Amino acid sequence: MTRASVVGTGMTTFGVHESSLPELFARAALSAYDDAGVDPADIDAFYFGNAMGGQTENDTHLAPTLATEVGLAGVPAQRFEDACATSANAFKNAVQAVEAGIHDTILVGGVERCTPETGKGTGEMTRIFASASHRQYEQPTGLTFPGVFALLTKRHMHEYGTTEEQLAHVAVKNHGNGTHNPRAHFGSETTVEEVLDSPIVADPFHLMDCCPFSDGAAAVVVTSDDSAASFDGPVDVTGVGHATDLVPLGLKPTLHATQAARDAATQAYEQAGVTADEIDFAEVHDCFTGAEVLASEAIGFFEDGQGGPAAEAGRTALDGDRPINPSGGLKAKGHPIGATGVAQIVELTEQLRGEAGDRQLDDPQRGLAHNLGGDAGTTVISIMEART
Amino acid sequence: MTRASVVGTGMTTFGVHESSLPELFARAALSAYDDAGVDPADIDAFYFGNAMGGQTENDTHLAPTLATEVGLAGVPAQRFEDACATSANAFKNAVQAVEAGIHDTILVGGVERCTPETGKGTGEMTRIFASASHRQYEQPTGLTFPGVFALLTKRHMHEYGTTEEQLAHVAVKNHGNGTHNPRAHFGSETTVEEVLDSPIVADPFHLMDCCPFSDGAAAVVVTSDDSAASFDGPVDVTGVGHATDLVPLGLKPTLHATQAARDAATQAYEQAGVTADEIDFAEVHDCFTGAEVLASEAIGFFEDGQGGPAAEAGRTALDGDRPINPSGGLKAKGHPIGATGVAQIVELTEQLRGEAGDRQLDDPQRGLAHNLGGDAGTTVISIMEART
Repeated sequence: MTRASVVGTGMTTFGVHESSLPELFARAALSAYDDAGVDPADIDAFYFGNAMGGQTENDTHLAPTLATEVGLAGVPAQRFEDACATSANAFKNAVQAVEAGIHDTILVGGVERCTPETGKGTGEMTRIFASASHRQYEQPTGLTFPGVFALLTKRHMHEYGTTEEQLAHVAVKNHGNGTHNPRAHFGSETTVEEVLDSPIVADPFHLMDCCPFSDGAAAVVVTSDDSAASFDGPVDVTGVGHATDLVPLGLKPTLHATQAARDAATQAYEQAGVTADEIDFAEVHDCFTGAEVLASEAIGFFEDGQGGPAAEAGRTALDGDRPINPSGGLKAKGHPIGATGVAQIVELTEQLRGEAGDRQLDDPQRGLAHNLGGDAGTTVISIMEART
Repeated sequence: MTRASVVGTGMTTFGVHESSLPELFARAALSAYDDAGVDPADIDAFYFGNAMGGQTENDTHLAPTLATEVGLAGVPAQRFEDACATSANAFKNAVQAVEAGIHDTILVGGVERCTPETGKGTGEMTRIFASASHRQYEQPTGLTFPGVFALLTKRHMHEYGTTEEQLAHVAVKNHGNGTHNPRAHFGSETTVEEVLDSPIVADPFHLMDCCPFSDGAAAVVVTSDDSAASFDGPVDVTGVGHATDLVPLGLKPTLHATQAARDAATQAYEQAGVTADEIDFAEVHDCFTGAEVLASEAIGFFEDGQGGPAAEAGRTALDGDRPINPSGGLKAKGHPIGATGVAQIVELTEQLRGEAGDRQLDDPQRGLAHNLGGDAGTTVISIMEART
């Protein structure tokens, strides 16, 4: 069977940018071309993710516009939107298209602007983000995403005794990792005390439990594993799972289980022919510290209820036995919605190539990316492997 | 090679609806299940189109919400957005997924609310629609979509002498067809005089050259041609082309050529192994009368420059030699953006099954759907064939 490989990556810094969406995206895409050593003429299709450009900047139908900017006018170009899982979904569809022989080489990428550079402040952006919660049953209650993930996390605390200190350790670890990532939104350490002393946003989350609003773009070049042999440093995609859960929250039988993640992980592990024990590290969707704890259990890194103690014990640190978010994660690297899923793929690729600089893990062979959307109602999980 | 077939269709009336997006979509989806004779348990994935729910109703991440509404929670569910080509793109990706064996049976659908029922009037909706034109170069000039297609059409008039009367004949024909379509937004005839006497919106378009803002939903069940054999009235998808063009308008070397449509048609004809002469009828994207004339040439129904005279001569009428838009088209059937592409597939299916009621063509064997997005920067073209 044909498999897909990543042969080039590009990414802007995540943070505050003055550039327009097309400029920001082009910077990531052209870097990916350079890294792969390809020209636009080598690219057969464009799979693109952006979550909120319509609402933030009255900018839709972006796929052909950006295709034009990066020399791809003519090829099939389409936009995906699945809230925060937007570009992981674009990646999944691109991987499937390469595996099926529909296209040989695809540019996959995502971009988003979420900071006041869009002309919209935190309040307005919070309302726009909340468009990904249930219009009829959740938005009218005033529920925004800190509250959504607070509900999931509170249930986990109730079931397993997970503590605010354990959550704070996630923030401390991810900020520490972020100091080694030159593209991270935040480049400074924090402490458990600092996290716990920061203002409450939605109980149990303090400000420092929450990821920031960021601007940024990420792109990768995906090609067939056969074609990939002629590239430097290809990294193979061996599994991609995608599942949805009941929406809204009120319908989910076990809030803290994040069932879509479990189902997507099962699919991805089965495709890759491996178990969680054979994965050397993961990038997970830590929009809030609690989300990382839940994810670490859903992907099988830890038994249910052990995610909190594992974080506190340092098991998920760069030098732990189960490293999570070596990039700094959404918490420290930043979270430009439509770019986040592909940025995780960039980190997996760099780690598996041994090119992750000061945050390089010790010779990892297999990594996993976990990107969720909305109230965890969508999850896409990708597994990538170094070529031996 | 595995091919894809449509085995069930569902569609709401197009027009003004009080229902929410989920209610509207569920009505179409459940009709499609009924028509196919399937249960949600038979569906493996959900490919969904909505163009503007974020902007119109602060409603994104709709794929899992709607999947939940129609009994599909759990399956991979993703939203596509490509302006007016939104759900044709979802359909293309679903067809490719079935052909590749990624999924056997998929629900494909789209929904949109564009009328004042969203709480937004014509001015605000016009601004939202304009988000699909170029943010940097076109929106600041005040260009909205009547103007975009007026520019394309004016150039066609300049090149070939196409007249306003010829354009009016498109409106008259499509309104006539719409009177035979119980789901059409407009159910009344019009005349050339009435079109030409209606107020100018953007020269050369009078009000009656323009399609309406509509609410509506459409859905189809797509399965592998092998599986389709056990269904009543399967209709095979034999070609799906998809191309993009340079964006914005100022970069297009030949405005009236709508190059993306020509490229997508070439792909679709090649896949289907047929020429334009072997297509019995087409549903084309007549957001404005001029767009139908341009499309009729781009898909090869007429030589360049002959689209206008052909419309005037009645060649595209139900009883013409080249019927176009038997459904009434966007002009009379209506244009709920994200539903339009799949609604074209519904019409193709009904015509090829011989179930199109008073607008039934004489035993058609092959139909083509042409769905464009933005300034024609995206076009998806699908070819479907009756089973003999």
